[in-house]
Amino acid sequence: MREGIDRIGIGMLGYAFMGKAHSNAFRKIGYLTWPPPLEPRLVAIAGRDEAAVAEAAERYGFERWTTDWQALVSDPEVGLLDNLGPNALHAAPTIAAAEAGKHVVCEKPLGRDADESFEIWSRVATTGVQHMCAFNYRFVPAVRLARELIDAGELGELRHFRGRYLQDWGDDPSLDTWRFHADEAGSGALGDLGAHVVDLARYLVGDIASVSALVKTFLPGREVDDAIEAAVEFEGGAVGTIEATRLALGRRNAFQWEINGQKASLAFDMERLNELQVFRADGDRARGFKTVLVSEADQPWWEFWWPPGHIIGWGETFVHEIHHLLSAIADDGDVAPVGATFEDGYRAAEVCDAIVRSGQTGSREQLSYRTI
Amino acid sequence: MREGIDRIGIGMLGYAFMGKAHSNAFRKIGYLTWPPPLEPRLVAIAGRDEAAVAEAAERYGFERWTTDWQALVSDPEVGLLDNLGPNALHAAPTIAAAEAGKHVVCEKPLGRDADESFEIWSRVATTGVQHMCAFNYRFVPAVRLARELIDAGELGELRHFRGRYLQDWGDDPSLDTWRFHADEAGSGALGDLGAHVVDLARYLVGDIASVSALVKTFLPGREVDDAIEAAVEFEGGAVGTIEATRLALGRRNAFQWEINGQKASLAFDMERLNELQVFRADGDRARGFKTVLVSEADQPWWEFWWPPGHIIGWGETFVHEIHHLLSAIADDGDVAPVGATFEDGYRAAEVCDAIVRSGQTGSREQLSYRTI
Amino acid sequence: MREGIDRIGIGMLGYAFMGKAHSNAFRKIGYLTWPPPLEPRLVAIAGRDEAAVAEAAERYGFERWTTDWQALVSDPEVGLLDNLGPNALHAAPTIAAAEAGKHVVCEKPLGRDADESFEIWSRVATTGVQHMCAFNYRFVPAVRLARELIDAGELGELRHFRGRYLQDWGDDPSLDTWRFHADEAGSGALGDLGAHVVDLARYLVGDIASVSALVKTFLPGREVDDAIEAAVEFEGGAVGTIEATRLALGRRNAFQWEINGQKASLAFDMERLNELQVFRADGDRARGFKTVLVSEADQPWWEFWWPPGHIIGWGETFVHEIHHLLSAIADDGDVAPVGATFEDGYRAAEVCDAIVRSGQTGSREQLSYRTI
Amino acid sequence: MREGIDRIGIGMLGYAFMGKAHSNAFRKIGYLTWPPPLEPRLVAIAGRDEAAVAEAAERYGFERWTTDWQALVSDPEVGLLDNLGPNALHAAPTIAAAEAGKHVVCEKPLGRDADESFEIWSRVATTGVQHMCAFNYRFVPAVRLARELIDAGELGELRHFRGRYLQDWGDDPSLDTWRFHADEAGSGALGDLGAHVVDLARYLVGDIASVSALVKTFLPGREVDDAIEAAVEFEGGAVGTIEATRLALGRRNAFQWEINGQKASLAFDMERLNELQVFRADGDRARGFKTVLVSEADQPWWEFWWPPGHIIGWGETFVHEIHHLLSAIADDGDVAPVGATFEDGYRAAEVCDAIVRSGQTGSREQLSYRTI
Repeated sequence: MREGIDRIGIGMLGYAFMGKAHSNAFRKIGYLTWPPPLEPRLVAIAGRDEAAVAEAAERYGFERWTTDWQALVSDPEVGLLDNLGPNALHAAPTIAAAEAGKHVVCEKPLGRDADESFEIWSRVATTGVQHMCAFNYRFVPAVRLARELIDAGELGELRHFRGRYLQDWGDDPSLDTWRFHADEAGSGALGDLGAHVVDLARYLVGDIASVSALVKTFLPGREVDDAIEAAVEFEGGAVGTIEATRLALGRRNAFQWEINGQKASLAFDMERLNELQVFRADGDRARGFKTVLVSEADQPWWEFWWPPGHIIGWGETFVHEIHHLLSAIADDGDVAPVGATFEDGYRAAEVCDAIVRSGQTGSREQLSYRTI
Repeated sequence: MREGIDRIGIGMLGYAFMGKAHSNAFRKIGYLTWPPPLEPRLVAIAGRDEAAVAEAAERYGFERWTTDWQALVSDPEVGLLDNLGPNALHAAPTIAAAEAGKHVVCEKPLGRDADESFEIWSRVATTGVQHMCAFNYRFVPAVRLARELIDAGELGELRHFRGRYLQDWGDDPSLDTWRFHADEAGSGALGDLGAHVVDLARYLVGDIASVSALVKTFLPGREVDDAIEAAVEFEGGAVGTIEATRLALGRRNAFQWEINGQKASLAFDMERLNELQVFRADGDRARGFKTVLVSEADQPWWEFWWPPGHIIGWGETFVHEIHHLLSAIADDGDVAPVGATFEDGYRAAEVCDAIVRSGQTGSREQLSYRTI
Repeated sequence: MREGIDRIGIGMLGYAFMGKAHSNAFRKIGYLTWPPPLEPRLVAIAGRDEAAVAEAAERYGFERWTTDWQALVSDPEVGLLDNLGPNALHAAPTIAAAEAGKHVVCEKPLGRDADESFEIWSRVATTGVQHMCAFNYRFVPAVRLARELIDAGELGELRHFRGRYLQDWGDDPSLDTWRFHADEAGSGALGDLGAHVVDLARYLVGDIASVSALVKTFLPGREVDDAIEAAVEFEGGAVGTIEATRLALGRRNAFQWEINGQKASLAFDMERLNELQVFRADGDRARGFKTVLVSEADQPWWEFWWPPGHIIGWGETFVHEIHHLLSAIADDGDVAPVGATFEDGYRAAEVCDAIVRSGQTGSREQLSYRTI
Repeated sequence: MREGIDRIGIGMLGYAFMGKAHSNAFRKIGYLTWPPPLEPRLVAIAGRDEAAVAEAAERYGFERWTTDWQALVSDPEVGLLDNLGPNALHAAPTIAAAEAGKHVVCEKPLGRDADESFEIWSRVATTGVQHMCAFNYRFVPAVRLARELIDAGELGELRHFRGRYLQDWGDDPSLDTWRFHADEAGSGALGDLGAHVVDLARYLVGDIASVSALVKTFLPGREVDDAIEAAVEFEGGAVGTIEATRLALGRRNAFQWEINGQKASLAFDMERLNELQVFRADGDRARGFKTVLVSEADQPWWEFWWPPGHIIGWGETFVHEIHHLLSAIADDGDVAPVGATFEDGYRAAEVCDAIVRSGQTGSREQLSYRTI
C-alpha cells in the first residue's frame, strides 16, 4: 500500500469485452494518474462461466472469483461494484450493492427500459452511495472540450444536433450474442448505440422534448432492432436527428455528431477521437473548420498521458471515467455533470422508449421525465 | 453557323444567380462538348427589372431582352424555354411555352407545392415536348458514378440513406429575398435545399414511402422554414434521414449524403464534389473507404474537361445538364433516368408536402403519387 | 462590339490541352468578369497539323487558322500572342511577336534552359510590351490568399517550404509525346512539374539560394527525367524540399506544399484547390489547422463566380490569369507581383538548371541570377 | 507468480517521458497480451535525481531504485536492461549490461554518432544476448501492415520514399533540455526525429545509398540542429526526401511518409496512426487511396486490444514493442526483421552522420556500412 493513498476494493460483474476495458482502467489508475485519488484493489470478479471467470481473475489480477454475483454484493472488502453484465443483469445486483452500502458503476443502458431504469435510479439514490452510468464517451477529451466550449457560451444559442452511431457487424445471420435477444438486451442498436447518442445529445445540447422515429429490423428472425432513425426536438429549441445502426457497411465505430450554434459549430467522429472540428464565426477572413488535436487544448485528463500530438486510444476513455468516479468517491464530490449519474441513465432510457413508441404508433412522442 | 450542327434558340426567364450559371453553360456547350448536340443561340432573356435584364442581355450575349415573359413564349425563334424565375413564376410560363411547342427546362422546385407541380407536369406532358426539372446535382460526375455503381448491383440491397443539405447564410434578420416570402417561394430550406436531397434520394435509392418530420423556423417574423428534419422510409425498405437547413454555421454548400448497402457504401460532400467515398466489402484485408477522384472513373462527361486530377467546379454541372437536355432534344431521346423530368419534379414535391404535413400533424405521413 | 469596352485580337500558337484551357478562358472573360478589362477577339490560331488546327479554329471560334506561326506574328489584327507550343517553340515566336509590338504570354517553362529563358526575357523586355509566363497556379485563389497572408506578416519569419508536384501518368513505356523528347522539352518532370514548384516557392517564400539535388530517370530509354528531388535553401534563410515526379502512383495532380513560419503555417493540395490549410499560433486553446474554403476569404477573383462554398475548378485559374493580363494591358499596369513575368520565368529556369547540375556533380549548387 | 509463465527482471535506466511509456508497457504485458511471453518483474530503476527516481519507483511499482546505473548492471535479479537515458548514457550501461549477460533494449538513437553506435553494436553482438534499438514506430500496426504489403510484392518495384517528422516545440529560446546540448544529445532534430525517419525508410524501402543534405540551426546559440533536409537515394534505386524539424508550427507529432511503387502507393501520418492510406493500380474504375482503419487488417497485435474501429493510441506501440522483445527472449527468437536490432541502430547512425557531413561539405555523401 502506498503511503497516504487510500484503497478501494473493486468487485466486477462481467469479464468479456467490457471486463477487459474496465480492468485495464483500474490497473492503470495507480500509476498513470499521479497521485491516484484512490488505489483500486481488484478484490473479486463474477461471471457465469466458471473457467472463463477464473481465467479472467488470473489474467487481470483479481484476488478471487465467483459465479454468484451475490457474493460480490455481500463481500465486505468490495467498496465499489462495477456492473458490466448483460442488460438484464443490471438492476438486481446494482440495487443490492447500493443497498449494501457499496458505490456502484453500471454499464449503459442503465435498464432495459425506462421503468427498469427508473427503478434502479430511484432505489440507488436513496442509499446515498455514488452512482455512475458508464457512458464512457463523455470521457473522450474532445467531447469534454465541446462541453466546455458550449458552457462558456462560445456557440451561442444552439440550433442543430445531428448524431449517428454507425457500426457494421450486425449483418451476419449466423451471429448469436445476448445483444440479439430481446429479454437480455431490451433492444438492439437502440440501447447499444442509440443510447450513447442520446446521452451525448443530452450532455451537450440538453434534454429532448420530442422524437419522431422509425425502428427497423432488417434480418429475418432477429428479435431486436438493427437500426433506428429519429427526428428530434430539444427543450431548448434545437432540432436535429439521432440515428443508430449496426448495418452501415464500412463504418466500424463511427459515432459522429455535429452541433450548430449561432456563433460556432462543432463536429466529431469517434474513429478519429483525438480530433474536434471547431468552426467559429469570428470575422476572420480565413474562415473554416479547425481540426483541433485535442491533446493541445488544456484538457484536464491529458496530463495522464503523453506530449501533445501523441494520440490516445479508445481504451483510455475508461481510465478517465474510472479516475473521475474514484475522485468523486474520495472527495465526496459530484459525478455530474461531467459523468452520467443514474438519473442520466434513466433519462436516456425515457428517450429510447419514446423512440420505440414513435416507431410503433407513427406519432411524434413528447417526452416527460419522472423525478424522485 | 457551323456545318452540320443544328441550332436551337434559347429563351431565358431570369438573369440573377441561376441566369449566370445557365448562360455560362449555354455559351460553353458549343466548344467544350465537341461536336455539340445542338448549337445554342441566345435569342432572348426576360426579367422584371428593365435595367438589369438589359445589362444581362449585353453581358451574356442575348440578342434581345424583355420584361414580359409572354414575349419569350410567343417568340418563334425560341425553341427552348429555360425558366429560372422565382418559384411562383414556374407554372404559367412553363406551361405556356410547352403549349406553344417549345421544349422546357425549369428550375427546382418545379412548383410551390405538389398540386402546382402536378399541374405543370400533367399539362406539359400532353404537349410532347422535352421537359427537364433542373436538379443539377444529378449532373455531378460523382453522383452519376454512384448511380452507375448502384445500377450495376455493386451495393446489393440498400439499407440506409442519410442526406443533409447544410448552408449558413440564413441567420441574418436584415436579409430580404423572394426566398423568404411564402407566396413567392412556397417554402424555405425545404424547397430550396431539401428538394435537392429528396431528388437525389429518389435518384439513388428509389421512391420514398413515408416521412416523420419536423419543420422549424428560428428567426422571428420569417415566413418560411429555416430547417427541416425527417426520418424517412423508402419503398424498397431502406431507412434514413433527410435534413435541410440554412443555419448550419460553417457549412457553406454542404450537401452531404451516405448510402449503405449490403455489399458496399458510398459517401459524398458537395464541398468536395470531385470526390466519391467508396467502401466495398470485398474481402481485402486492407479495408476502408476509398477517396475516388471522379475524373478517374471513366465518367461520360469527363471528356469535356481536363486530364485526370484536374478538378472541375460547381458551375460545370450545368454544362453537363444542358448538354444532356440538348442531346435528348436533338436525338428525340430520353431525359430520364439521368436527368429529372417534370414527373420527378412532381414526385419530389409530394415528399416535400408530406414533410410539411408531418411537421404540422406530428404523424408519420405515407406517400402516394398521382399518375397521368 | 460592346460600348466602352476595347477589344484585343488574340493570336494563339498551339491547340491541344493548353489550347483548350486558354481558349475557354478567353471566351469566358467577356461575360464572367464584368465589365471585362478588354474584350478578346479570337483572331487566329496556329499549329502544325492542318486538320487539327482547322478543327480547333472552328471549335473555339477563331476567325482564321494557319500552320505558320510567322503569320500570327505579322498579323496586324493580333494584339496579344498566346504561345502554348512545345518548349522548343517558345523562344522564336515569342521574341518575334514582342518585337512586332504585340503583348506576349508564354507557357511555362519559359525556355528549355536558363540561357534560352534569359534570351527570351532580355529581348522581350527591351520592346516594352507586356509579358507574362503562364504559371497559372499563382491564379489559384488559395495561393493568392497564401501570398496575402505572408505579405501581411501573418506568418512571421519563414522557416520551411516543402513542395512536391506528383503525377503518375509517366510509367508507360509505350507512351510517346514531345514531353519525353529532350530537344523539344528540355527536361521531363523537372520543367513540366518542378518548374511550377520552383515558381510558387519563389512567389511565396522568395528567391532560392542553393539546391542539392538528385535527377532520376526510371524508364529505360527515356530521354528526360522522371523525377527530381532537391533539398533547398532560400535567400531569406528558410530551408526545405522541392520534388517533382510523374511516377507517384495514385497522385494525379497532387501539387502539394506546406510553409511553416514563426507565427503561422499554411498547407495546400491542388487536388483540393478550393481549400487552404491555415494554422495560427494565436493562443487559442482550440489549436489546429483550419480548412479554409477559399470562396470565403474575400478573394478578388471570387466575384467572377458563385456564392461561397460553390467550388471552382482547375480550368478557372486560366480565367483569372487572362483577366489579370488583360487588365495590365488595358491599364498599362504591372503583371508582377501577382502574375509571373518573363523575369520570373528566367529565374525559375536558373533553379531548374542548378538542379540538373547538382544532380550531375553531386554538389550543392549556389544560385546566381543575371540582370538586364 | 502465474503458473507456467516465466518471469524476467527489468532494470530501467531513466524515468521521465520514456520511463512512463516503457513502464506502462511492462505493466500491461501481463494481462493485455494473454498469455504473456514472459511476466515482467519491475526490479529496479535508476536515475540521476534521487527524489525523482524514488517517486518513479513508487509510482510505477519498481521494487527498488538507485542513482547508480552500475547497480542495475550488477543486479543478479535484472534479466533485461531497458536503457532510456540521455544519448550520452547509451553506450556504457548498455555494453556493461550485455557483458554481464543481460538482454538489452536501448532507446534511439543508439549512440551519438556512427562510431559510438558501432561500438555498442559490435561489443553487444559478441555477448549473444538479445538486443533491440527502440525504434517504436516499427510497432505501429499501420507500419507493420505497410511492411507486409511490401514484402508480399503488392507495391512492385519501389520508386519513391518521402518522409518527414515534424514537431513544433523547438521555437522557444528559453527552453533548456539535454536534447539541446551537443555533448549529451549528439545532434538535435536529426537524432531525435530524423533517426526515426531513417529507420522506417530502411525498414520499408531498404538501405540508403547516398544523401544530399542541409543541416540548419535557426535559434541563435542553440548547439544542435533545428532541422535537416535531405534528398536521398536507396540502394534499390528509389529516390526521395528525408526531413526532420522541431519548427513546423502546428505539427505536433507529424511523422508523415509516402511510398510510391510500380503497383501501389502507401501514405501515413502519425497524428492519425490508426490509418494507412493504400492506393492500388488494380484496374478498378473507382480509383483512389483507401483509408484503412488498421484495426481491420488482421494485424497480429490487434488481438491485444478492442473490436475493430476502436482505435489505439501512441502509447500502445510500446506494448507491441516490449511484447515482441520478450517473445524473442522467451523463444530464443529473432528481434529482426520486425524489430530493430543494434545493427539497425548503427546503420541509421551512419545515415545521420552522412547527413551531417553532407550539410558541412555540400557534397552528396555515399554511404558505406561496417560489418562485424
